[in-house]
Amino acid sequence: MTEFFNVTELSRVLEYTAEFPRIGTQTLPLQECGGRILATDIVSDVDLPDFRRSTMDGYAVAAASTFGASEANPAYLAIRGSVVMGKPPPFSIGPGEAARISTGGMLPDGADGVTMIEHTAAIDDTTIELYRSIAPGQHLIEAGEDIAKNNTVLTSGTRIRPAEIGLLAAFGKNQVSVYRQPSIGIISTGDEVIPIDRVPGPGQIRDINTFTLSELVRDAGGIPNCFGVVNDNYQDLFDKCVKALDQTDMVLISGGSSVGMRDFSIDVLSSLKDSRILVHGISISPGKPTILATSAGKAVWGLPGHVVSAMIVFIKVVRPFIERIGGLARSAQEAHGPRALLSRNISSAQGRVDFVRVRLAEENGILWAHPILGKSGLIHTMVKADGLIEVGLNTEGLDRETEVTVLLL
Amino acid sequence: MTEFFNVTELSRVLEYTAEFPRIGTQTLPLQECGGRILATDIVSDVDLPDFRRSTMDGYAVAAASTFGASEANPAYLAIRGSVVMGKPPPFSIGPGEAARISTGGMLPDGADGVTMIEHTAAIDDTTIELYRSIAPGQHLIEAGEDIAKNNTVLTSGTRIRPAEIGLLAAFGKNQVSVYRQPSIGIISTGDEVIPIDRVPGPGQIRDINTFTLSELVRDAGGIPNCFGVVNDNYQDLFDKCVKALDQTDMVLISGGSSVGMRDFSIDVLSSLKDSRILVHGISISPGKPTILATSAGKAVWGLPGHVVSAMIVFIKVVRPFIERIGGLARSAQEAHGPRALLSRNISSAQGRVDFVRVRLAEENGILWAHPILGKSGLIHTMVKADGLIEVGLNTEGLDRETEVTVLLL
Repeated sequence: MTEFFNVTELSRVLEYTAEFPRIGTQTLPLQECGGRILATDIVSDVDLPDFRRSTMDGYAVAAASTFGASEANPAYLAIRGSVVMGKPPPFSIGPGEAARISTGGMLPDGADGVTMIEHTAAIDDTTIELYRSIAPGQHLIEAGEDIAKNNTVLTSGTRIRPAEIGLLAAFGKNQVSVYRQPSIGIISTGDEVIPIDRVPGPGQIRDINTFTLSELVRDAGGIPNCFGVVNDNYQDLFDKCVKALDQTDMVLISGGSSVGMRDFSIDVLSSLKDSRILVHGISISPGKPTILATSAGKAVWGLPGHVVSAMIVFIKVVRPFIERIGGLARSAQEAHGPRALLSRNISSAQGRVDFVRVRLAEENGILWAHPILGKSGLIHTMVKADGLIEVGLNTEGLDRETEVTVLLL
Repeated sequence: MTEFFNVTELSRVLEYTAEFPRIGTQTLPLQECGGRILATDIVSDVDLPDFRRSTMDGYAVAAASTFGASEANPAYLAIRGSVVMGKPPPFSIGPGEAARISTGGMLPDGADGVTMIEHTAAIDDTTIELYRSIAPGQHLIEAGEDIAKNNTVLTSGTRIRPAEIGLLAAFGKNQVSVYRQPSIGIISTGDEVIPIDRVPGPGQIRDINTFTLSELVRDAGGIPNCFGVVNDNYQDLFDKCVKALDQTDMVLISGGSSVGMRDFSIDVLSSLKDSRILVHGISISPGKPTILATSAGKAVWGLPGHVVSAMIVFIKVVRPFIERIGGLARSAQEAHGPRALLSRNISSAQGRVDFVRVRLAEENGILWAHPILGKSGLIHTMVKADGLIEVGLNTEGLDRETEVTVLLL
């Protein structure tokens, strides 16, 4: 009846990400690509900008015409004309000549610098006085200075932030190939679990995990696909799993995975098509009784039923698998969190990694991480938490005032 | 022609947030509330859980029946029955009695603790041997231990993360009052700016700002509403502004706000209904020539045309205004970023705040912030950047190896 856990280390579990193939791609209008994962390399097909642009309002000149100019000894330049925005100037600039130009205007041939309007005075309609010399290249952006032609500017697997959207816009990529968002099936189990729109009777609780996991899936770039609550019944769970696997790219089952009399998740997972149990127990706390199986190339998870355990396992274990199948490059998965000082001693068992909820508070310029204690069935502890800290495999705890890195929630 | 900036300090600019009212609210199904801002306080109307729940698989007992039990001197308990999940046990437990119970099961009356199954052995169908004593309250969650009835568990203005979704689910809040997402009008200006699906001729560039600003608006919780590119023409810009103000909660105009010959943004903003120019120039770099006006209670921004400047002004200045009108509580707006060591000296002018783009790289356990230099018209500098650091108003720069806080992008 009781199968004991043969726990796997977290780092080993995460290596299994490589076993799951990336899902497909789709082409989207650029304005829908924010937050998505690029599925192709982007190579610059033109210089950006592809002309010499002014970065100031002033006069385009040959820098050599300004050398030696000062308040005491101004240079005098003849105005050849005005640069019209968005048009190539129909004239060129020779020594001793200048053209009115605005920020973003195209420099005429012969001009290799821009004097700021503040350093000039108009003598009349055709002549200006100039009080400062400029160097060649001053106050302009050279053709190709932002990005030169034929460079790989973005690589497949990059998350598209506002800056990447801007770069794609600059190259006129109004249709972009991105990875599909992984569809993640979510199943809650337990005879005591009821849908949230019902009023729990004695012994019943509402189905929190469907909601917390759905929202975590969205945060991870996936699309939740909820299959409701399944009672503790082998056949119902098996049928629901088959359906979820058919319709989604990965399945999360919460509840039913602790060692105990109701534990048939493992039997269901073992019976799925082409299935293999990869992990049955992870040396983390909370979250030890987690199961990872593969069925026909898709990951199926047995997550703990306790709400906090399920959330933490999702964040630390499941999320990298969603990112993997969703195309995110490994290098882009690193997260840098704030560092804080622990406000009290915390103890831990050797041989497992503990994830401790913390609340952040700044006091006199010092950022403190206050551990939030409480059982892993208590949702309020996650509401109070700003982040998680990790207590490593080989330590028996951390002392007060240890500096810790916080993964923000 | 030339109006000189009367620059305002950033902290003063941010105080103007209070001048703009919060926008309306709406009621949404819980599964659509992720990332939204709660528009009401949530008070617990029941105890959570509202019964005493087991956190282990084992036997529910009166703890006193276990006192003194050990391997050498086990206690013997009579099994009264099994707790059925999701149902109140139809029996109570007396001294020397036990009931089989699973994780999440409801304790029978008379039971005040749960022994783990691992610390017991079944003698026969009606008797168990018990090898360890437990304390009252062990391995259970008391009624109301997660959240007691009649407490304010979430306050208006809270951002709804996965944990808050879970809490709302626990209380059966399947319809939730949240703030509307602010609709933000975006207008690009400039005769040289063309839509991204056209091929730029000489002197023309594609409209990047509409895309970067749209994406930043989404990240800030708003909904972008793009009004395209307006040529440098007073009447066209005025008409477009009036239309955008009519249809949205705030308007961003990029380009046209540097001191110069084409600068009529300020005239347009001054001419709008019930308008007032609050800020014309901010003591930050990049982003100095930013304008903030109010028209009929809505904010209208003149942002710099340079793509990097517009992005940084958005992140550091505009975003708090969107969060304000979108209902986010002030306390929730604090962001904690990682700390890193600066990899080289950077200089700055006194009297302004500089925002410097940095790339993060960890080397031998030390997180370095590498400043990315480059003109504020170069989008590639934002693509390379992981974050921004701030060089304060009253410093002339920062030395190499100074510890800096990084705002992640």
